[in-house]
Amino acid sequence: MSDIEKLKQRLRDFAEERDWDQFHSPKNLVMALSVEVAELVEHFQWLTEEHSQQLDTKTLAEVTDEIADVQLYLIRLADKLSVNIVEAANNKIVKNAAKYPADKVKGKSKKYTEY
Amino acid sequence: MSDIEKLKQRLRDFAEERDWDQFHSPKNLVMALSVEVAELVEHFQWLTEEHSQQLDTKTLAEVTDEIADVQLYLIRLADKLSVNIVEAANNKIVKNAAKYPADKVKGKSKKYTEY
Amino acid sequence: MSDIEKLKQRLRDFAEERDWDQFHSPKNLVMALSVEVAELVEHFQWLTEEHSQQLDTKTLAEVTDEIADVQLYLIRLADKLSVNIVEAANNKIVKNAAKYPADKVKGKSKKYTEY
Amino acid sequence: MSDIEKLKQRLRDFAEERDWDQFHSPKNLVMALSVEVAELVEHFQWLTEEHSQQLDTKTLAEVTDEIADVQLYLIRLADKLSVNIVEAANNKIVKNAAKYPADKVKGKSKKYTEY
Repeated sequence: MSDIEKLKQRLRDFAEERDWDQFHSPKNLVMALSVEVAELVEHFQWLTEEHSQQLDTKTLAEVTDEIADVQLYLIRLADKLSVNIVEAANNKIVKNAAKYPADKVKGKSKKYTEY
Repeated sequence: MSDIEKLKQRLRDFAEERDWDQFHSPKNLVMALSVEVAELVEHFQWLTEEHSQQLDTKTLAEVTDEIADVQLYLIRLADKLSVNIVEAANNKIVKNAAKYPADKVKGKSKKYTEY
Repeated sequence: MSDIEKLKQRLRDFAEERDWDQFHSPKNLVMALSVEVAELVEHFQWLTEEHSQQLDTKTLAEVTDEIADVQLYLIRLADKLSVNIVEAANNKIVKNAAKYPADKVKGKSKKYTEY
Repeated sequence: MSDIEKLKQRLRDFAEERDWDQFHSPKNLVMALSVEVAELVEHFQWLTEEHSQQLDTKTLAEVTDEIADVQLYLIRLADKLSVNIVEAANNKIVKNAAKYPADKVKGKSKKYTEY
């Protein structure tokens, strides 16, 4: 079983043990996901780009926990929608490669660096 | 190599081929991540919770692509910060279990369903 | 002087007294704005739509403070970009009315309720 | 009648003419607000801080429209919750001044520049 599959199962058990399935509609989970991402943004809002590449140990530990939260909610949401994240991500890279041909977008950020 | 590791490598190649590494500071990536999550939120904003559980085929395909985008930016961000997502996620589940003891929070959403 | 103009001036003084102007680039302010909105979302993520219309006194007071924060950062951002919010908002209502003709979108949410 | 009050009234008419009141629960409006803020973030995600202070005419026009959208949804949300935005914003500045005393936070961003 893959890492993502294992995490999906752990989250199912976690929700079931707490009787939280009733709150986990996709609408609610997507809201919770956006809140977790903002907690990540909060750590970076006043940093320069350069500084954002050199986090101190304490901040990096907090950021690591927020990255984990985003990953967990994303897995939970995908589970509720029966979406296979890894397959979807691999497919999306192929689409992105076609959308942003390397020779046309090389070194350009404007409108091109979005996946 | 795990699924996440493989995706990480594909994204490194993708950015290198396009000379996009220069734009991928953690500060910028976290902003891009928040934009992708909002594109996911957009699909759910006017739906009832019930309706959010029964997406039509077209919407589900679009939502799947947005989930993929969130996953890809999250992997890219974690890579730039040298964070092991799977390890972080597993550690976070343990912390959450301690923070929200099943017997105390059972069936309660308020302040307790946040991971 | 209008209410918004007065708030703009108060925020200028506030930042100047704290020597915070150096952190208030539009890029940083837009990140801070997104964080404040997420703090608002956090209050609503596990509520039903119906419940979201009947907040208890404590939650409403907290939500009021978050709405204020969003308004303050929005004014600060607009000030830094020399955007007149009230004029922009009035212009946007006219555009939205043209984009969503009342007789065509009446009672429909899908793709139409976005301003 | 103040600018905000006038916009509030225009938005009420706008929603009523389209029979959109049924979709405008605070929960849904707060989601829509977060989506509009992300459309604002999108314009800034790959810009340097310096560049974000010198937007070209086209980008500034688009950013102005997004700022307007955020303002409109914020007014609509506040209306639905019977929150007086201007009063709330003025009260919040007073709270922030107490929370971040000028002499203690002068020139420091970390944990202090959040309103």
